Amino acid sequence: MAGIARKIFRKGNRVRIGIGDDAAAIDIDDTCLVVTTDMLVASIHFPPGTKPEQIGRKAVVVNLSDMAAMGAEPLGLVFSVALPRELNVEFVKKIMKGMESTAREYNTYVVGGDLDESKEITIAGTAFGLANGKRLLKRSGAKEGDIVAVTGELGAASAGLKILLKKMPSKGYKKLVDAQAKPIARVKEGRVLAQRGLVKAATDITDGLASSLWQLANESKVKLMINYEKIPIHPLVRKFSQKYGFDTDDFALFGGEDFELLFTVHSRAWGTVQRALKRIGTKATPIGQVMKGQGVFIKKNGKTKLLEDRGYEHFKN
Amino acid sequence: MAGIARKIFRKGNRVRIGIGDDAAAIDIDDTCLVVTTDMLVASIHFPPGTKPEQIGRKAVVVNLSDMAAMGAEPLGLVFSVALPRELNVEFVKKIMKGMESTAREYNTYVVGGDLDESKEITIAGTAFGLANGKRLLKRSGAKEGDIVAVTGELGAASAGLKILLKKMPSKGYKKLVDAQAKPIARVKEGRVLAQRGLVKAATDITDGLASSLWQLANESKVKLMINYEKIPIHPLVRKFSQKYGFDTDDFALFGGEDFELLFTVHSRAWGTVQRALKRIGTKATPIGQVMKGQGVFIKKNGKTKLLEDRGYEHFKN
Repeated sequence: MAGIARKIFRKGNRVRIGIGDDAAAIDIDDTCLVVTTDMLVASIHFPPGTKPEQIGRKAVVVNLSDMAAMGAEPLGLVFSVALPRELNVEFVKKIMKGMESTAREYNTYVVGGDLDESKEITIAGTAFGLANGKRLLKRSGAKEGDIVAVTGELGAASAGLKILLKKMPSKGYKKLVDAQAKPIARVKEGRVLAQRGLVKAATDITDGLASSLWQLANESKVKLMINYEKIPIHPLVRKFSQKYGFDTDDFALFGGEDFELLFTVHSRAWGTVQRALKRIGTKATPIGQVMKGQGVFIKKNGKTKLLEDRGYEHFKN
Repeated sequence: MAGIARKIFRKGNRVRIGIGDDAAAIDIDDTCLVVTTDMLVASIHFPPGTKPEQIGRKAVVVNLSDMAAMGAEPLGLVFSVALPRELNVEFVKKIMKGMESTAREYNTYVVGGDLDESKEITIAGTAFGLANGKRLLKRSGAKEGDIVAVTGELGAASAGLKILLKKMPSKGYKKLVDAQAKPIARVKEGRVLAQRGLVKAATDITDGLASSLWQLANESKVKLMINYEKIPIHPLVRKFSQKYGFDTDDFALFGGEDFELLFTVHSRAWGTVQRALKRIGTKATPIGQVMKGQGVFIKKNGKTKLLEDRGYEHFKN
């Protein structure tokens, strides 16, 4: 729908980035206001058994992850929450407590909200923050010759979701379940990437690596060549997939909610960026290159083929 | 729930106004960012037969009305929209077009959004804007001796809703139906009230005059004495009520969605404020006084009694 929306909604003069990126950016004097909104709907986003505190946490993290993907420093969050009438006050309080403690982890604040009634739990969050307008991490900034890289390891949240949905034993795989139930937004990492001015393109991986790579390629009008062997698949995801006969790629490439950052950086600056991330304790892995052309290609076992543009399909209860 | 929320959510240093007012306000250098969120749920907020463009309009107006109530100049809006799968793309486009044309009326922009699936149409909007931090129109600013006033006329939107819900003939009452279907936010008026620095307390009337008066009285820790005869009830509301045997007060005092501004102003500044509003074509009517004490009282036919703290109950399909 972003294509349709871009045709309908006019972009104002002060609007630096409008519809179609991780967040919008509006100039205020010398600084830039970054705003994003993300909605969570119970039947789509919360696996059965999700605790209210986890609902609150996720509502904060999905929005802060978009702040991270723009390189913005969060200022605050507001939430519109609609709940079925039968939920009790304690449940609602626990959602709020989950929001509060998570916001505090990221040194930001919940400053307002609206409460309504609905047929299912629906939480729309809006995060807003500040950034240097010239150093925003856009989806459209990738340049030919850049290195494509990701933070952290991939597939854990998606494998964790499988465990929860299939009610599989989580013994030995608690880290996978935690990646799903207690997600992390790469806010500090986004700030580091933006501050140096060395990274121009980034997005967060919410619907899977493949989907994010396609967004980056399309928005930047470039071709991405990915080296499959370099993709930092979470070791427990490999182990879990092997044991139960799942396809690792369904988690690491096409599974969602890892909230890692995908970014591109000039090859000369790669070392600097990697060290800067290492200093805050975060691993960054080069997984490919930006080339002239279009589309996303992947090299695996010596063969190159087009990467499927298949995103994470949110489950349905 | 605002009381509970205020206990749970900590207020940051830069947060000038947190939970409990029409919007939150956060300092950015010398200016102040004002943010509000409001959610509309189909079964609660849209009478049967509401057109998609009207849904889009209302989603914009409810949020801009909160900007108005703070005296802020809108910068932009973002929307999280959840829709049932069976709705077609044309319907969604019409909602967006309604949002766009309404935003443009107020010289502001829709800059981002999120689209999801849900059991019923759910639209969470967030509006953000700028204001002078020292001249924010808070709910807590009413002072003893101030005049209590409202913009425009009351009851029309609520009477219009009755016509729509009961499928009554709208002949002769089109203005009432329009007040419901095509609401207006008092953004210019809010700016005028704030710019002069003469008005310190204001809120928008979304759930009815009575409910807004109580919010103002509680937040400002004052008593409000309202003169019933002065309340500017829309003349068509009187006519409509008389004809069909409804109680005018149910529309004008306890009916919602007029989106007029309720504010208090020092008695010496009243003339200046009234003239400033008149210059932009808006009538303001003094309806009572701020006094020491607590609660909201109303004088009617020479008798004074406590005004019922009954707000507009959103209808259910």
